[in-house]
Amino acid sequence: MKKQLLIIYLIVMLVSLISPASADNTLSNNDIARSINFTWLLIAAFLVFFMQVGFAMLGAGIIRVKNSLNFFTMVFMDFSLGALAFWSIGFALMFGGSNASIGLDLGNAYVGYSGFLLAGKTFDNYSAGFMLFQVMFAAATVSIVACAVVERLKFKAYLLYTVAVTAIIYPIYGHWIWGGGWLSQLGVKDFAGSGAVHAVGGFVALAGAYLLGPRIGKFDKDGKPNVIPGHDITYIVIGTFILIFGWFGFNAGSTLSATDLRISVIALNTFMAAAAGATSVCFLMVSRSGKADITMICNGALGGLVAITGPCAYVAPWAAVLIGMVGGIIFVKAYSFVEWKLKIDDPVGAIACHAANGIWGLLAVGIFADGSYQGVTGLIAGNTDQIYIQLIGAITAIVWAFGMGYIVFSLIDRITGLRVSPEEELQGLDICEHGICAYPEFSVNSKDTR
Amino acid sequence: MKKQLLIIYLIVMLVSLISPASADNTLSNNDIARSINFTWLLIAAFLVFFMQVGFAMLGAGIIRVKNSLNFFTMVFMDFSLGALAFWSIGFALMFGGSNASIGLDLGNAYVGYSGFLLAGKTFDNYSAGFMLFQVMFAAATVSIVACAVVERLKFKAYLLYTVAVTAIIYPIYGHWIWGGGWLSQLGVKDFAGSGAVHAVGGFVALAGAYLLGPRIGKFDKDGKPNVIPGHDITYIVIGTFILIFGWFGFNAGSTLSATDLRISVIALNTFMAAAAGATSVCFLMVSRSGKADITMICNGALGGLVAITGPCAYVAPWAAVLIGMVGGIIFVKAYSFVEWKLKIDDPVGAIACHAANGIWGLLAVGIFADGSYQGVTGLIAGNTDQIYIQLIGAITAIVWAFGMGYIVFSLIDRITGLRVSPEEELQGLDICEHGICAYPEFSVNSKDTR
Amino acid sequence: MKKQLLIIYLIVMLVSLISPASADNTLSNNDIARSINFTWLLIAAFLVFFMQVGFAMLGAGIIRVKNSLNFFTMVFMDFSLGALAFWSIGFALMFGGSNASIGLDLGNAYVGYSGFLLAGKTFDNYSAGFMLFQVMFAAATVSIVACAVVERLKFKAYLLYTVAVTAIIYPIYGHWIWGGGWLSQLGVKDFAGSGAVHAVGGFVALAGAYLLGPRIGKFDKDGKPNVIPGHDITYIVIGTFILIFGWFGFNAGSTLSATDLRISVIALNTFMAAAAGATSVCFLMVSRSGKADITMICNGALGGLVAITGPCAYVAPWAAVLIGMVGGIIFVKAYSFVEWKLKIDDPVGAIACHAANGIWGLLAVGIFADGSYQGVTGLIAGNTDQIYIQLIGAITAIVWAFGMGYIVFSLIDRITGLRVSPEEELQGLDICEHGICAYPEFSVNSKDTR
Repeated sequence: MKKQLLIIYLIVMLVSLISPASADNTLSNNDIARSINFTWLLIAAFLVFFMQVGFAMLGAGIIRVKNSLNFFTMVFMDFSLGALAFWSIGFALMFGGSNASIGLDLGNAYVGYSGFLLAGKTFDNYSAGFMLFQVMFAAATVSIVACAVVERLKFKAYLLYTVAVTAIIYPIYGHWIWGGGWLSQLGVKDFAGSGAVHAVGGFVALAGAYLLGPRIGKFDKDGKPNVIPGHDITYIVIGTFILIFGWFGFNAGSTLSATDLRISVIALNTFMAAAAGATSVCFLMVSRSGKADITMICNGALGGLVAITGPCAYVAPWAAVLIGMVGGIIFVKAYSFVEWKLKIDDPVGAIACHAANGIWGLLAVGIFADGSYQGVTGLIAGNTDQIYIQLIGAITAIVWAFGMGYIVFSLIDRITGLRVSPEEELQGLDICEHGICAYPEFSVNSKDTR
Repeated sequence: MKKQLLIIYLIVMLVSLISPASADNTLSNNDIARSINFTWLLIAAFLVFFMQVGFAMLGAGIIRVKNSLNFFTMVFMDFSLGALAFWSIGFALMFGGSNASIGLDLGNAYVGYSGFLLAGKTFDNYSAGFMLFQVMFAAATVSIVACAVVERLKFKAYLLYTVAVTAIIYPIYGHWIWGGGWLSQLGVKDFAGSGAVHAVGGFVALAGAYLLGPRIGKFDKDGKPNVIPGHDITYIVIGTFILIFGWFGFNAGSTLSATDLRISVIALNTFMAAAAGATSVCFLMVSRSGKADITMICNGALGGLVAITGPCAYVAPWAAVLIGMVGGIIFVKAYSFVEWKLKIDDPVGAIACHAANGIWGLLAVGIFADGSYQGVTGLIAGNTDQIYIQLIGAITAIVWAFGMGYIVFSLIDRITGLRVSPEEELQGLDICEHGICAYPEFSVNSKDTR
Repeated sequence: MKKQLLIIYLIVMLVSLISPASADNTLSNNDIARSINFTWLLIAAFLVFFMQVGFAMLGAGIIRVKNSLNFFTMVFMDFSLGALAFWSIGFALMFGGSNASIGLDLGNAYVGYSGFLLAGKTFDNYSAGFMLFQVMFAAATVSIVACAVVERLKFKAYLLYTVAVTAIIYPIYGHWIWGGGWLSQLGVKDFAGSGAVHAVGGFVALAGAYLLGPRIGKFDKDGKPNVIPGHDITYIVIGTFILIFGWFGFNAGSTLSATDLRISVIALNTFMAAAAGATSVCFLMVSRSGKADITMICNGALGGLVAITGPCAYVAPWAAVLIGMVGGIIFVKAYSFVEWKLKIDDPVGAIACHAANGIWGLLAVGIFADGSYQGVTGLIAGNTDQIYIQLIGAITAIVWAFGMGYIVFSLIDRITGLRVSPEEELQGLDICEHGICAYPEFSVNSKDTR
């Protein structure tokens, strides 16, 4: 047996040379992979949270000073109240039943129904991190709507609407497309939410802006739209910078893991689409009027970002540049269309930015997906089916979001009323709804008090 | 021997199949775990640093324009000068002797005394990252005090006080509770610093505000407090958003590692407490006056955050919601108490936010800790002792911080004097202490020049 | 053979005990290390991107309100258009041929020439993340130049110049020092770009400011410089806070990996140098005039940061403190020198901050490198050669950047002209170049309309 013992000894030595990791570890590779994925997911969630202040600054800057705190308060409360609503109800409707790995085992193709209050067996380290990431998306959807209804919506109506979106409207469409529901079973692909977040938010915004009607003075008697200038253009730019920064988390965090090394391509695509959207709008503006209008440039970048959100993982950087460039142009065209054709007053441009480009983002998957990630292919990879499937996802988003938005805003109209009185609107909502003005010591020289 | 060689060959093949990692790795699992923990700790430190600009904007917005740069400068210098003081002295007092793994091996239950200047054998990759994280906490403590003494404290006095807090007051309490000192030996639990940072900062602030006396015009002759409005309410909201963003690092980074997967629960609890604090204050305000006062809502969120800081790792999300809701209400009540009962002028509300909720956070551990993390239990887990232990930690924080604050501010009064002259106070500290005003080109229409 | 089978069984058992990781993993240690390195690199890239809004706020705050949107637009477009230029051309010139691991295999000591449009075999997960990080550095270089040419440069000229810097000037020096070119072969060490980014940007800025000439009213007829005050000092401070926050990514991200545990020392050194720069300038200002000028303090912090960028990985914290303190003082001295001696008008102080301290940072490697990282040694480690090698890198940066900047600005002068008309300059570039003013509703009371 001596020889055999020698062999054993030699082999153990050999093995310990081959796998030096084995000797001193206390954590398995799976444990470590989990901790890196948690790190990635949580930091991405922090970044998506930070987008809220980007939305707040963008929107507050683009409207009049007398309503600027109203907008800040709307965004602050939509994530606060929205977090409570999504935690208690929305998360269960969206992911209940969809994901056995997070302890949720009830649900069907239409709605989830387990995990309310993140209680019971649903609650563990993984579901806590996953919910933190998801709740930020729900809050973003509400903030998109705020952009279209500001300067005239009652604050109490906004609170009611926030609950409706975070508890019901967003989670149910989200279940269909991301929670194992019927759209995902059809094969609709929406990586980080061109449809689930932006199109849904944008079409609810359309319903809200339509039902509310335009701000006093927005349209002349002959229907010509007037420009109502914002009060702080620097906030628009700063807000956009912050949104781009947070969007890295929004898109690249949607892998939910860092061991999926596609995160780098997603982050690069996100950035290139923003840059391309800004650049195409800049050149369009300069060629039109000789002036590089920074408000439009910022919206071009945001249009590019909304558009790349759905396809970000499935396409190559050149396609991201193209998608972003088109996204910028779509914003400019859609913005005019909403004002001049639909005669709808959307103060911060949410419909043009999020609704129009959300649809473009869904369709772009069907065009530019090249098969390099999870086998998703579009026209350029010779698959002519995907674009029709994407179209189903897009039409569903439009019908669901506009329809539910219409119903919810109509209901709220009966409960609290939607719109402040004309006197309050002229005075500004900061004083009448919040009892304070934004800059108490500065001389404000409002040119527009219609 | 041929057979044996064949066996060796087969076994080696087998092993390489079982452990594919072994073949190509150069890093051990421990090496990799260390790198993920460094990543987490460093990014958390960056986020906690970023809270400084949140403090600066919050405080500057809530005070008058004529002192706004003074506040920005106080915060900028408290982290700058504070970094030098903590690096050279404070870190050694706080952690010297407490942590063999970082090469510090002297110290006792009362104070550490090794690692000055992070020099000698104390200095390595780990201690560098650990110090970066800790220095941000020291700076946060000083910034809390700035909130209570602004608009009247001499800048030189602030510099002296910064050194006292970062080199002595904060590190010594920190040693007791986090550095292996007597409070930690008693079993006091304060996960991320409801006590060590917020209560300590808040009670030093109380001492400072008491010794300085109120701003000119704050109280009528009959003692009724007047409202002195801030100059930029948008900065208050933006500052609060930034503080929430940074607080994710403050709390979840306090694991010091990402291989502790509790980070996700901590981050979620942090967010839910902020949301709950904002929501409870929003409903309280609306039910009282019909106005949703965004300044109070922001402070409600911050009250919730301060309160969850101590218990964030030990409780479930539902408890975090409850702790945050109560934290918001505590802010509102304590703010009135400080102004109307104590007759102390605390311009940015640091005492109500950080002192009162810091104590609440320490006690909340003794109530809501459910035993799911590190075996820490409170009342709801049937342990009636922990709350008394926590009370000892709280009383110690109050006595130490108020006492040392009183002594230090009294000493500084003898050296440089504490308060600017009434003429300088009326003119504003920006001009007299910093030679510049915040917005040189804007028309400022100060309603308050008392 | 039974005995042998038993031995095999025992050995396999033994191995599975020694390496518990082996049993359940699906990812190799290399896979995991890659994912943690991707996480680190990407988050660092996000932080470096975020510096853009820091640059924008710093610069916009320090100039007059009538040109503030022009500065915001310059920074927004330099990263947008710059991203397209660097992606299509610059990246290939900089890294083509230098790094076989990213699939680039053509190039020489002077310029790379593969990987245009990140296409073909160059494109993979790693190169995508690497390019994202690098493109942010290119954008930072351009933003530095914006600081010196603002308030008078035509916007179209800025767009042309942006392409020149991101496609050619920055990448070629970058290839020499970081892409395997002749400076790196000589042994010049510039860890995160005191030379490659800051000195290059700063000396191009010098050429631009020189060719443009001073703003109307900057110098009296006898050559005495006048102070032209900024319009929002709070933006200067907020911008600086954001720059420090982003600089953590700039420096510590330059390891390109988190498995290099030196990241903690780099981050600490970065922070200490900023703190030391702010503190030295604060004490200098207070001792000179009794006033703590926050604009100068912020620039002191930035001077410290620029100086530590090159040596951040090679030195100990005490050296970082020293380098930062000197960096702050250098800013103050160089700022006076540029205005009073060179008679050059550099509105945001880019030359003093980035050119002067960029050179100081390169030389500081040759003085303070202590051999603790990658064997790089300077004077304090007894190596008297390194400082001469660093000097070659510095002189090359000066000659290349100033020379190319001179050529490019001269060429642009012929194409579009460099400077707006005196009427437009007096009116402000926001109206004439962008068709909008920054704060439409506020009363602006411009004291300076020379």
